[in-house]
Amino acid sequence: MLFQVEMTVKLPTDMPTEQADKIKATEKSYSQDLQRQGKWRHLWRVAGSYSNVSIFDAEDNAELQELVSNLPLFPYMEINVKPLCRHPSSVREDDS
Amino acid sequence: MLFQVEMTVKLPTDMPTEQADKIKATEKSYSQDLQRQGKWRHLWRVAGSYSNVSIFDAEDNAELQELVSNLPLFPYMEINVKPLCRHPSSVREDDS
Amino acid sequence: MLFQVEMTVKLPTDMPTEQADKIKATEKSYSQDLQRQGKWRHLWRVAGSYSNVSIFDAEDNAELQELVSNLPLFPYMEINVKPLCRHPSSVREDDS
Amino acid sequence: MLFQVEMTVKLPTDMPTEQADKIKATEKSYSQDLQRQGKWRHLWRVAGSYSNVSIFDAEDNAELQELVSNLPLFPYMEINVKPLCRHPSSVREDDS
Amino acid sequence: MLFQVEMTVKLPTDMPTEQADKIKATEKSYSQDLQRQGKWRHLWRVAGSYSNVSIFDAEDNAELQELVSNLPLFPYMEINVKPLCRHPSSVREDDS
Amino acid sequence: MLFQVEMTVKLPTDMPTEQADKIKATEKSYSQDLQRQGKWRHLWRVAGSYSNVSIFDAEDNAELQELVSNLPLFPYMEINVKPLCRHPSSVREDDS
Amino acid sequence: MLFQVEMTVKLPTDMPTEQADKIKATEKSYSQDLQRQGKWRHLWRVAGSYSNVSIFDAEDNAELQELVSNLPLFPYMEINVKPLCRHPSSVREDDS
Amino acid sequence: MLFQVEMTVKLPTDMPTEQADKIKATEKSYSQDLQRQGKWRHLWRVAGSYSNVSIFDAEDNAELQELVSNLPLFPYMEINVKPLCRHPSSVREDDS
Amino acid sequence: MLFQVEMTVKLPTDMPTEQADKIKATEKSYSQDLQRQGKWRHLWRVAGSYSNVSIFDAEDNAELQELVSNLPLFPYMEINVKPLCRHPSSVREDDS
Amino acid sequence: MLFQVEMTVKLPTDMPTEQADKIKATEKSYSQDLQRQGKWRHLWRVAGSYSNVSIFDAEDNAELQELVSNLPLFPYMEINVKPLCRHPSSVREDDS
Repeated sequence: MLFQVEMTVKLPTDMPTEQADKIKATEKSYSQDLQRQGKWRHLWRVAGSYSNVSIFDAEDNAELQELVSNLPLFPYMEINVKPLCRHPSSVREDDS
Repeated sequence: MLFQVEMTVKLPTDMPTEQADKIKATEKSYSQDLQRQGKWRHLWRVAGSYSNVSIFDAEDNAELQELVSNLPLFPYMEINVKPLCRHPSSVREDDS
Repeated sequence: MLFQVEMTVKLPTDMPTEQADKIKATEKSYSQDLQRQGKWRHLWRVAGSYSNVSIFDAEDNAELQELVSNLPLFPYMEINVKPLCRHPSSVREDDS
Repeated sequence: MLFQVEMTVKLPTDMPTEQADKIKATEKSYSQDLQRQGKWRHLWRVAGSYSNVSIFDAEDNAELQELVSNLPLFPYMEINVKPLCRHPSSVREDDS
Repeated sequence: MLFQVEMTVKLPTDMPTEQADKIKATEKSYSQDLQRQGKWRHLWRVAGSYSNVSIFDAEDNAELQELVSNLPLFPYMEINVKPLCRHPSSVREDDS
Repeated sequence: MLFQVEMTVKLPTDMPTEQADKIKATEKSYSQDLQRQGKWRHLWRVAGSYSNVSIFDAEDNAELQELVSNLPLFPYMEINVKPLCRHPSSVREDDS
Repeated sequence: MLFQVEMTVKLPTDMPTEQADKIKATEKSYSQDLQRQGKWRHLWRVAGSYSNVSIFDAEDNAELQELVSNLPLFPYMEINVKPLCRHPSSVREDDS
Repeated sequence: MLFQVEMTVKLPTDMPTEQADKIKATEKSYSQDLQRQGKWRHLWRVAGSYSNVSIFDAEDNAELQELVSNLPLFPYMEINVKPLCRHPSSVREDDS
Repeated sequence: MLFQVEMTVKLPTDMPTEQADKIKATEKSYSQDLQRQGKWRHLWRVAGSYSNVSIFDAEDNAELQELVSNLPLFPYMEINVKPLCRHPSSVREDDS
Repeated sequence: MLFQVEMTVKLPTDMPTEQADKIKATEKSYSQDLQRQGKWRHLWRVAGSYSNVSIFDAEDNAELQELVSNLPLFPYMEINVKPLCRHPSSVREDDS
């Protein structure tokens, strides 16, 4: 089941660089694990921003909550979720 | 080059059914042509709405404008565009 | 799987009373059928408004879309959807 | 008398973990007491967020204020209240 | 139990004067009846607008819904409701 | 001359309790003095919030500014003012 | 007593030119009368818009309501009012 | 003196095609005249919309108002104006 | 050339009183100099707020930027600018 | 390919002057390099603000992201991006 998740990172500007780097590295690793498992199906940067547009594939709302709330950057992001489903005009069989 | 396009359809509630059906059929055909050409890469319904989330793959901004402004439902939609690019944490080679 | 759905009815003020009454009667019947099936778990009026707060229980996002988009008042409503899941502090076993 | 209460937790990102954990534990205990008393009738997590949707059952507006303003997380939350009442299409006898 | 109700009238600009006058007269009569019963405790015009700020005194949320939704201008108004209760610093005994 | 004033208190979450208590006590005393003088005619808590809805009775705009800007909590509040006047449908002689 | 009033004209695009011209002529005459009386102290066009910024000088809120609600364009305008008073840094004696 | 002007065209969906085409042709001619005079310095389409971003070069605010309010599409557009001036980091001599 | 400038002061609540007083005194002096030069034509307090409504008379956009960005409180204010020009219904010769 | 980029600088008010000056100097140098390369085609100050309106000329969305995210002030700015393309009424050959 697909969800569009938009995330905007708002790190405190006074966070020490080392701490920020560490969180970002953990986030990257966590994100790539989920991508390889197929849970985080798409991940795009919004050009000119510190935001991304993502498509998650979760079993249900509860799994989405687990995936998103465990993001290392979760406390520092504004997150917007939209539940998705197959569009009647879609021609792709593997896209819902 | 990818763009996220969100569209919300707002047909006038007094549009005759026949006219609305005709526009929707033309829209569906136009959309499926673009999908088959690879220009309209993803098309999802936002659950519980008359909105979709789409990913377009256009040569440049000018082609995006051409693709979107020729949508038969264009005069009846609220449309929001975000330019996308590869995310540094993405693991998919074919997704930017 | 639960979803909170908020609906605000915006009937055109020039819709003939007979037509409005007919749509409302069909809506009521449709709503009560879904409630009896357990698909529409809760339905409350927001006091002082023509809005409701509802909790739907759907198999997945696709079923939610089917349930909501078939509402007779669907073309006349502003609708907002939030996916819900069990809260870690909830004490009710039957509420997720 | 029912109220929908939506709460979004915004803990300061520099709050010490120990302090945050203590407030959350007190909040959980407070919340579960109210749930068991029937004052906090429903509590759901909004998937992909640090927000909840709740239904409170209070004697009147004054009791709602007392219940909500005593939440241990009250100083750290954005809270939105909507007074609810029975919907004329509701089929549930115990839901208003 | 008190509620603040803000109402902004948005009559269609093409409504015939006679029809508008009739609705306004019915509204005035309805409003004055509720004021005399003590249900509509205060009614003020917001200066420079076609809006009012009102304080209703209703038994509960359900009665508020009944009072407000029966306003003759109800289909033509934007309405915002806030539940009120006694403020701990208030010195008036008769104001909650 | 009446004004509706809505105030939402946003104390910094790291303000020492003692300091906050002192400001609140001064605010209460200041508020009750104005209420007894008839300058602060009504004061209600918005249920489920740290906000109030107030009705001030001031000689003119200048006095309103003086009354509001001297509130001990003034630097910590979001404040919204609406000038009020008698509503043509009001039946109360003492309410404008 | 001064008030800032911002007005944005939104005439229906299908209003017959003759009718629109007549309302505008009446508005102009009404406006110039109030300006000559000193009630409408300043009137500026916001460049690139069909909006104005005005300063009214009224006895009280009630007179402001009378002046504004009698504008011939009143039913076709979005209007925003702010009560003004002397600024402690102002050097003009005649400007409050 | 430069101004950024953003315009979004909102033609009524029931305007006859012939009438719309005529207005658009007049608009195009008017726009190209101003561009050739150097008054309308830049004109870009916002990709995926019926909006443009423009840079006007006007003598003063009054001329900007004259240029913009005479646009044939003026009654059908949402328009936003920002006054511009030379940026201290700009390296272009001819761009302010 | 006139501009309406609205300013809302948002001093950090933890700024030392002495520092705040010093900035405010410099601001007052700067403001009164500009008023005496005729650059800052009007200055009003918005009643019940820490905001002002001002009318500036500047040679052009560049001078407006210079006048406003040199305000001692500039880093602590939300500022909104609207370019103004003579209104066709204005009767004042000296007001544009 | 052109993009409109609007940037509003929000430096923390407690950033030491020396640090702020250093970031601004680096920003200026970075900006002027990009301008000389033709990547940053226009740069204007919005009068009365700490904002700019810019036109970037980038190969694609990815290059835009690289140019913008490397701005020394990037962590301290609110940034809004709009993809642009040639307008059918434009008369300039070199402006798309």
